[in-house]
Amino acid sequence: MSEPLLLVLNPNSTRAVTDHIATAVAPLQHPEGPRIVCETLVSGPPGIETQAHVDGITEKMLDWWKHHPQRQQAAGLVIACFSDPGLHAMREELSIPVIGCAEAAYHTAAALGGPFGVISILSRSVPRHLRQIRLLGMEHLLAADLPIEVSVVDLGDEALTFGRMQSVGECLVRQHGARVVVMGCAGMARYRRRLEDTLGVPVVDPTQAGVAMMMGRLRIAALP
Amino acid sequence: MSEPLLLVLNPNSTRAVTDHIATAVAPLQHPEGPRIVCETLVSGPPGIETQAHVDGITEKMLDWWKHHPQRQQAAGLVIACFSDPGLHAMREELSIPVIGCAEAAYHTAAALGGPFGVISILSRSVPRHLRQIRLLGMEHLLAADLPIEVSVVDLGDEALTFGRMQSVGECLVRQHGARVVVMGCAGMARYRRRLEDTLGVPVVDPTQAGVAMMMGRLRIAALP
Amino acid sequence: MSEPLLLVLNPNSTRAVTDHIATAVAPLQHPEGPRIVCETLVSGPPGIETQAHVDGITEKMLDWWKHHPQRQQAAGLVIACFSDPGLHAMREELSIPVIGCAEAAYHTAAALGGPFGVISILSRSVPRHLRQIRLLGMEHLLAADLPIEVSVVDLGDEALTFGRMQSVGECLVRQHGARVVVMGCAGMARYRRRLEDTLGVPVVDPTQAGVAMMMGRLRIAALP
Amino acid sequence: MSEPLLLVLNPNSTRAVTDHIATAVAPLQHPEGPRIVCETLVSGPPGIETQAHVDGITEKMLDWWKHHPQRQQAAGLVIACFSDPGLHAMREELSIPVIGCAEAAYHTAAALGGPFGVISILSRSVPRHLRQIRLLGMEHLLAADLPIEVSVVDLGDEALTFGRMQSVGECLVRQHGARVVVMGCAGMARYRRRLEDTLGVPVVDPTQAGVAMMMGRLRIAALP
Amino acid sequence: MSEPLLLVLNPNSTRAVTDHIATAVAPLQHPEGPRIVCETLVSGPPGIETQAHVDGITEKMLDWWKHHPQRQQAAGLVIACFSDPGLHAMREELSIPVIGCAEAAYHTAAALGGPFGVISILSRSVPRHLRQIRLLGMEHLLAADLPIEVSVVDLGDEALTFGRMQSVGECLVRQHGARVVVMGCAGMARYRRRLEDTLGVPVVDPTQAGVAMMMGRLRIAALP
Amino acid sequence: MSEPLLLVLNPNSTRAVTDHIATAVAPLQHPEGPRIVCETLVSGPPGIETQAHVDGITEKMLDWWKHHPQRQQAAGLVIACFSDPGLHAMREELSIPVIGCAEAAYHTAAALGGPFGVISILSRSVPRHLRQIRLLGMEHLLAADLPIEVSVVDLGDEALTFGRMQSVGECLVRQHGARVVVMGCAGMARYRRRLEDTLGVPVVDPTQAGVAMMMGRLRIAALP
Repeated sequence: MSEPLLLVLNPNSTRAVTDHIATAVAPLQHPEGPRIVCETLVSGPPGIETQAHVDGITEKMLDWWKHHPQRQQAAGLVIACFSDPGLHAMREELSIPVIGCAEAAYHTAAALGGPFGVISILSRSVPRHLRQIRLLGMEHLLAADLPIEVSVVDLGDEALTFGRMQSVGECLVRQHGARVVVMGCAGMARYRRRLEDTLGVPVVDPTQAGVAMMMGRLRIAALP
Repeated sequence: MSEPLLLVLNPNSTRAVTDHIATAVAPLQHPEGPRIVCETLVSGPPGIETQAHVDGITEKMLDWWKHHPQRQQAAGLVIACFSDPGLHAMREELSIPVIGCAEAAYHTAAALGGPFGVISILSRSVPRHLRQIRLLGMEHLLAADLPIEVSVVDLGDEALTFGRMQSVGECLVRQHGARVVVMGCAGMARYRRRLEDTLGVPVVDPTQAGVAMMMGRLRIAALP
Repeated sequence: MSEPLLLVLNPNSTRAVTDHIATAVAPLQHPEGPRIVCETLVSGPPGIETQAHVDGITEKMLDWWKHHPQRQQAAGLVIACFSDPGLHAMREELSIPVIGCAEAAYHTAAALGGPFGVISILSRSVPRHLRQIRLLGMEHLLAADLPIEVSVVDLGDEALTFGRMQSVGECLVRQHGARVVVMGCAGMARYRRRLEDTLGVPVVDPTQAGVAMMMGRLRIAALP
Repeated sequence: MSEPLLLVLNPNSTRAVTDHIATAVAPLQHPEGPRIVCETLVSGPPGIETQAHVDGITEKMLDWWKHHPQRQQAAGLVIACFSDPGLHAMREELSIPVIGCAEAAYHTAAALGGPFGVISILSRSVPRHLRQIRLLGMEHLLAADLPIEVSVVDLGDEALTFGRMQSVGECLVRQHGARVVVMGCAGMARYRRRLEDTLGVPVVDPTQAGVAMMMGRLRIAALP
Repeated sequence: MSEPLLLVLNPNSTRAVTDHIATAVAPLQHPEGPRIVCETLVSGPPGIETQAHVDGITEKMLDWWKHHPQRQQAAGLVIACFSDPGLHAMREELSIPVIGCAEAAYHTAAALGGPFGVISILSRSVPRHLRQIRLLGMEHLLAADLPIEVSVVDLGDEALTFGRMQSVGECLVRQHGARVVVMGCAGMARYRRRLEDTLGVPVVDPTQAGVAMMMGRLRIAALP
Repeated sequence: MSEPLLLVLNPNSTRAVTDHIATAVAPLQHPEGPRIVCETLVSGPPGIETQAHVDGITEKMLDWWKHHPQRQQAAGLVIACFSDPGLHAMREELSIPVIGCAEAAYHTAAALGGPFGVISILSRSVPRHLRQIRLLGMEHLLAADLPIEVSVVDLGDEALTFGRMQSVGECLVRQHGARVVVMGCAGMARYRRRLEDTLGVPVVDPTQAGVAMMMGRLRIAALP
C-alpha cells in the first residue's frame, strides 16, 4: 500500500517560493510519514496580491486536486499562502482535512500566549487580513498589522526586505505590545530565526505553523 | 551537549493518566528530537475537578519546575490537563514556550474548520470551560459543551465511559451541528479513534493537540 | 453625453433568473436615471451552490467588466446573488461603488427594525451566510437562518417552493422571533408579496434591497 | 383613492432645516410615488443637542402622528435627525415602517464598503452616537467619530462650517482610515458634494440615506 | 447645614408603587445618612409599559429636578423603574451621580456570579431589556428574559402574580441555567424573599440594587 | 443568636494593608449589621504581584475558611485584592455570596456611567486585568489601564505614590476620555478623595465598592 502524503500547495506559480516553503517545512517531516510534498499551482498567478487573485485560485486548486495523480494517497492539505485562498471551498469539496496557513499562524500565535502582531508585505492586503481575523474571533489578540510596503520586484533584495521586517517588527513589539509576531506571507521563513533573535519574541512562519498542525493531526489519525 | 526536552506535565498525581498521555503522544515523537518526556506532578491532587484544584496546582507546578533536574534542557512545556492549570502563571515565569492543552485543542478544532463540540466529564467543569472559550474569543465556534457525568470512580468502566462519550458526541454532531469534537479531558486518547469512526467527524484529544503544536514550534525554533 | 447606468449583474448564466430580477427591480427605475440594466454573466455557472462557485465567479466578473461595452457609462454595480460573489474583489478593482445584494438585504432588514430571519434554499449555504453575517457584526440581529431544501430542479415547482417558503417563514416568525424576513436567494421576488401577506412582517428581496440602495446613492451622487 | 406619502419628519422646529432636507431628498422623488413630504415638528426644540432633547421629542412626534391630517395616506416615516429620536417608540406604535436616518446612514456606509468615519457637530453628541453604533453591532466598522465643535450660532457661517468639516473629514480619511464618511447631522447635505470631491471617498448624508431606503421599500411594497 | 439626600424617583404616578419601593429600600438606610427619600413623579404615567412612556418621562424628570425644593441637598439619584427612563439625559444634566435600577440590578447579578435570568412583566418590554443588556456588554451573562404576561390590572392579584413569577423563575433556573434571578420590574420587592426561598438562587430587586450601590457611593464620597 | 458577619479578606499577609482597608470600609458599616470584619490571610504572600501569587492564594483562602472560628456566622465574603484571587473557586465551594473587589469596582464604575480608566501599580498586572475585563464583557467601557510603576518598596513614599496616581489619572481623563477612574489596587483608599478632587470625576476604590455591594445584598437578604 502506498504511503500517505501531506500535501502543501503553494497557490502561486513561482517555483522559488515553493522551494523556500519546502526548505522551511522539511524539519517537520517525520520519518514514519506522512510524507510532506510541496507543490506549485502552475496555473496560479506569479504572486497573490489582490482579492481577485485570491478568489480566482479556487477553481485552479480544485482542478489541481481533481487531476492529482496521487490523490488517493493524500491524507491532508495545507494551503501555503497567507490569504488562505480556496480554504472554505476546499473544505466543502474534500473529505480530507484542509488547513489554511494564515489560520494556523493565528492559532499558533494565540497558543503561544499572544497578543500578536502581523508583518504584512503590502498595505492593500491588511483589510483582507482583518476580515479573516474578525471571522476567527481574534480581534482582541491582534496588536497591529503593519506592512513593509516592499514591491514584488524588490522582495528579491533580501537586505532591504529583512531591514523593513525588522523595523516593522520592532514597532509591533515596542509600540503595539505584540508578544508574538506572525510573518504575513508564505515563503519568508528564511528570515524567521534572525527576526526572532532581533525581536526577542516568538516569530511564527505560517507555512511551518500549518504543516506542524497537519503533521500532528495526520500522525494521530493514522493510529489504529 | 544534552538533548532538548519537550516536557509534558500531567498536573494530577495519577500515574496511570500520565501513562495514557505518554502512549497518546508517542507517535508525535520525532527521532531527531526534542525528546518528549511525560511527567506526573506527584504533589498534585489525584484528579482535577474543581476551580480550587486548578488554582492550587500553580504553586506545585512552579516548585516542580524550580527543582527539575533537567530544567536546562527543557525547550517547551505542555500542560496536560483540560483546565490548563497554571498556564498564565507559567508563561509569566518561564522563558520557554508554555502551551495549555485545552487552548491547543480549541485552536486545533478551529483550524480543522469548526464549529466544535466539547465532551466534558462533569457538568461542574462546563462554566470553567466557557470562561476559557470566551477569553479566547471562540464563543461563535462552540456548538455546545455537554457532560457525560461519569464520576471518577466509574471512569474506570471503559464500556460505560465510551458509551456515554458516544451518545454525547452524537448529540453534539446531530443536534448541535458540531463538525469537530473536542475531548474535554486529558488521558482519554484511547477512545479517540473509535469515537471518530462512530461520529464521522474529526475528534481532537487535547494532549495530542498540545504536543503537536509544541513539537512543531520546537523543531522549527531549533533551526539555525 | 451618454446616460449613466446602474448595472445589475446576475452572476449565474440562467437568463430566466436575470429576467425575474429585472422584473423585480423595474419599479425602482427612476425616469431621470440612472438606467437600470440587468445582465447575465454568461460565463457563470447555471446556479451558485457551493463556495467554489462563489470564488470562481470573481475572475469571470472582472473579465465581464473589462470588456463591457458601456463601461464608461457605468455609475454603480449591484451583485445580484445572495452569496455576494466577487464583492470585495470588485470593490478593490472598480472605482465606482459596488453593493452586494446579501449585504444590502441584511442592512435593509436591520433598518426596518430587525431581528431578521433568513429563508435559505439549501442547508449547505447556511454556514456561508453565517460567515458573512459575522463579518458584518449582525449576529445579534439574526433570529435564525433556515433552509427550504428544495433542489434546483424542483425550484421550478412554484407551489412546492412557495409552500416551503411559507412554512419556513412561519417558523422564523413564530418560533424564532423574526420581525423581518430576508429571502436568501436572488430571483425569487415574485413570491415576496404573497409571503409578506402570509407572514405579517416585512419581507426583503435582496436584489430589490441592493438596487434601492444603489439607486439612492447614484441619484444623489449625480447632483452638482 | 389618495396617493401614498413618504413622510420625512424634521423633529426640530427650525423650518430652514426642513427646507434644506427637502432640497436634499428631492432627487429621490419617484414620479409614480410615493410622494415625499417633509415636515417640521413645530412643537420640537429649535435644535437637538442633548439626550433630554432626544427623549423629549417622542411624545411630540406621537402627538404629531396622532393628529396628522393625512395619516391614512402615510406609507412610511423617516426620522430626519441624526440622533434618531423616537425611533424605537414609533416602531412600537406605528404599523407602517419607520427608518431612522442615522441608522440608515450607518447601514449605507457599511454597504458602500466601510470602515466609516463620522463628522459630528459637537463632542457632547459623540457618546450618544457610540451607544447607537454599539447597539447596531458596527463598532468594528467605525474609523472614528470626530466633532467640528461649531456652535449652533456659528453653523450659519458656511465657510467656517465647511472648512471644519473638510479638515475633520481629512483627519478621518488620512489618520483613521475611513473609506466612507458619514455627515453626523441632518440638514447639511448642501456640503455633501464638495466634501466628497475634497476627500475622495463617498460621503453619506443621513436624510438622503434614510429616504433612499424608504423609497425603495415603499415602491416595492406597493407592488401587487 | 442640611443633611444630604439620596433621592429615589419612581417615575410613574402610582403612589402605591412608591410605597412598596420605600419599604423595600428602608433596610438600606444608614442612620448617619444620606437620608433616602422616595418620591413619585406625579406628572408621570400610571405605569411604564412602552418605549414612548420611557422617552416621555425624561422631560418630566428634568422638570421635577428643576423645581425640587431640596435640590441643593440631593447627593445622588436612583431611577426606580426597570426601563431606566431618562438615565443618560439625567447624567448629562446633573452633576450628582445618577444610577439606573436596571443597570444596577444587572451589575449586582453579575457581581453575584451570574449567569442571570430576568423575570419581565410583559413580553413587549423584552426587546427593550435586550437593547440595554447589549449596550452594557452583558449578553453572555443573560440566561434568558421571560415574561409573566400579567396585565397591570391583574398585578393586584398577588397570588396569581407570585405564582407566575415562581413558574417563570423555575424555568429560568432549571431550563436556562440562571444562577441569579433579576426581577424585571420596580415595586415587586415584597415577593423577593419568597421567590429566593423557592428558587434556591439569589433574587435581585432592582430598586434595592440601585439604592445599595448609591448608598455605598455617597457614604464614601462624603468622607473627608 | 450570634450576629451575622460580612467578612472582608485581605489575601496578602501585610496587616497594614488590612488596616487601611478596615478604615476605608468603616463608613459602610450599618449599625444593625451585618458586622464588617476585615481579616488578613496570614499565610498569604506579603504582596500579590504575579499570576502565581494569585493562583496560589486559593488553597490558603479555602484553608482559612475551613478553620474560621466564626464560619457559621459568615453571611458574605468580599475578596479585598484587585486580582480577585480565588473568586471562582470560593463561589464553587461556599454557599454564601462571594464578591471580588475588582469585579465590584468595574461594575460600580459602569453603573456610574463610564467609560472608566484603571490606575494600576505595575505594568505586569495589566494583562491580568485585561483578561478579567474581557471575561466580564466590559472591553467597550475601558478607556485605558495605565500603571504608575511604583515598586512595593517605594509605595511607602506617599508623596511619590500620589503624584504618580495623579498624573496617570489625568492622562486617563484628558487623553483617554475616562469619566470614572478605578484604583487598581486594594488598600489605597486614603488617596481616593484627593484624587477625585484633582481629577474631577468619580474615583472608585475596589474594597469600598465590594463592601458596599455586599452590605446591600446582606441587609436585604436578612429581611423576612
